[in-house]
Amino acid sequence: MRRCVKCKGEPVIDLKSTNAAFCEEHFIEYFLRQVGRAVEKYKMMAGGQQVLVAVSGGKDSMALWDALLSLGYEADGLHIDLGIGEYSRKSRLVCEKFAAVRGARLYVLSLVDTYGTNMEEIVRRTRRVSCSVCGTVKRYLMNMVVQQKGYRVVATGHNLDDETAALLSNLFSWQEGYLARQYPCLPSTHPRLPARIKPLVRLGEQETEMYCRVKGIEFWAGDCPLARGATSLVYKDLVNSLEDKMPGTKRRFLFGFWERGRRNFTGEPVELKDCSLCGQPTTADTCLFCRLMQKAGINPLSQPQVSQV
Amino acid sequence: MRRCVKCKGEPVIDLKSTNAAFCEEHFIEYFLRQVGRAVEKYKMMAGGQQVLVAVSGGKDSMALWDALLSLGYEADGLHIDLGIGEYSRKSRLVCEKFAAVRGARLYVLSLVDTYGTNMEEIVRRTRRVSCSVCGTVKRYLMNMVVQQKGYRVVATGHNLDDETAALLSNLFSWQEGYLARQYPCLPSTHPRLPARIKPLVRLGEQETEMYCRVKGIEFWAGDCPLARGATSLVYKDLVNSLEDKMPGTKRRFLFGFWERGRRNFTGEPVELKDCSLCGQPTTADTCLFCRLMQKAGINPLSQPQVSQV
Repeated sequence: MRRCVKCKGEPVIDLKSTNAAFCEEHFIEYFLRQVGRAVEKYKMMAGGQQVLVAVSGGKDSMALWDALLSLGYEADGLHIDLGIGEYSRKSRLVCEKFAAVRGARLYVLSLVDTYGTNMEEIVRRTRRVSCSVCGTVKRYLMNMVVQQKGYRVVATGHNLDDETAALLSNLFSWQEGYLARQYPCLPSTHPRLPARIKPLVRLGEQETEMYCRVKGIEFWAGDCPLARGATSLVYKDLVNSLEDKMPGTKRRFLFGFWERGRRNFTGEPVELKDCSLCGQPTTADTCLFCRLMQKAGINPLSQPQVSQV
Repeated sequence: MRRCVKCKGEPVIDLKSTNAAFCEEHFIEYFLRQVGRAVEKYKMMAGGQQVLVAVSGGKDSMALWDALLSLGYEADGLHIDLGIGEYSRKSRLVCEKFAAVRGARLYVLSLVDTYGTNMEEIVRRTRRVSCSVCGTVKRYLMNMVVQQKGYRVVATGHNLDDETAALLSNLFSWQEGYLARQYPCLPSTHPRLPARIKPLVRLGEQETEMYCRVKGIEFWAGDCPLARGATSLVYKDLVNSLEDKMPGTKRRFLFGFWERGRRNFTGEPVELKDCSLCGQPTTADTCLFCRLMQKAGINPLSQPQVSQV
């Protein structure tokens, strides 16, 4: 392995995509600079210094939470406990330990406490693709907490690999609306909806994992048992094999999309109205969350059970 | 293997992408219907029944030539003999035999007779990517023959696999101009330039090969020795692995692009002027062909040596 590009010290990582190796100290510096650059370039913190970070307990969201705190932002965590056995127990524990060690604020919303059932059961009852159901539920609950606690910005740990795979998937099916909305910073479109930001878009999985290791951040590496066979994994493999053959491909592809490709896709203007059941902003008469919960035989109006750690 | 979807007879091919197997007779019917559908859908023969088919001697162009003749078009062949040893000798022989057997008209343009040197040497002297140099030279010479012989339409054997790989490559580098121009039928943009059509875009390599075998059409299966390591092959592998996992992906991706994706890319209007050296239409002062030939120390104004078989 090459020596650190900055100080010629012992390297911990050698990045082919940017053609540079780093020692511990300079890797952390590099990582935070990439996060900071994304925040600035896409004007993610235009609304102030306060942000709610969606934390699953995995390497990406834990690295994101730590990086935002390290960069001086008021980054509070929100963990949604999906109630999926050991997977969820370990995920939650990781978040709680981080909050305790760093003295950070963490909200935990428990699915079981709120609805009396877990994500596995909800997915089963709706008979829909699990990642799609889970995404809808988590997004909805996040917005509830945002409103309750008064946040204006939500940050998620989507990284370069996630975004590249999603872009490829959206292109393969020519989802013009999704293409128009795929951006690292989406401003709020309604007084009750937060801006949504993805500060890790310049960093890959290998980098978020190494950041956690180098900084001694605990994370839970288990794969979600409901996500097995997800097509997003097919696209990830595919982009990774291309990156192996042509290093830098992911960055060129994704950043090229945001600089040149995306302007060609203009989404339809979306008109938001109040959901007939819960009153939350939606494009339909009844929002997707309420429809899914009804299909699962669950009262969508149950008051979210949020504890603060 | 499943039986023929039409007559339950002995199958020769089982297509996962369209979920159908065919016997010899019904595969030929299917193949010609796909060609006919592409010709109609993209109005390829709007200018009449006469077309010049660029034939390399490989399975795609030989299948194309045969299919166009079978569908009743006045399809004459043009083979450009690149002078690359056995590869070119076999390629040319295949075309000449087909013309003799089918009583079709074939023009052969010899690079060595015209310029005193072969494609290998031209590529070496220009120090450019071989497929790019070869493409430029072949396109230029094709236009010369088109003008000499009075054709208005040139057909090439680009198939579903070629087009899908090219689309992916253009997306990965966000070549907006290339994306705007990637279409199965490009009308003439200048009185001296032909319309360019790709009637095989609904059919993959597996299908063009099977068509040749079933119809007893000889083709030369050798890989071009200059194309080794071409990046287009990387994209082809990638799309094939995706097609294996999700049959029908190629068709959805490519046809979706032409139906929905492509309208988002509007190429810059191109202004054509006469090349300062050869007088052919070009966007630059001196056309790329003349510049390449000059770099190779070859007189670009040499009169193309065309023989008719």
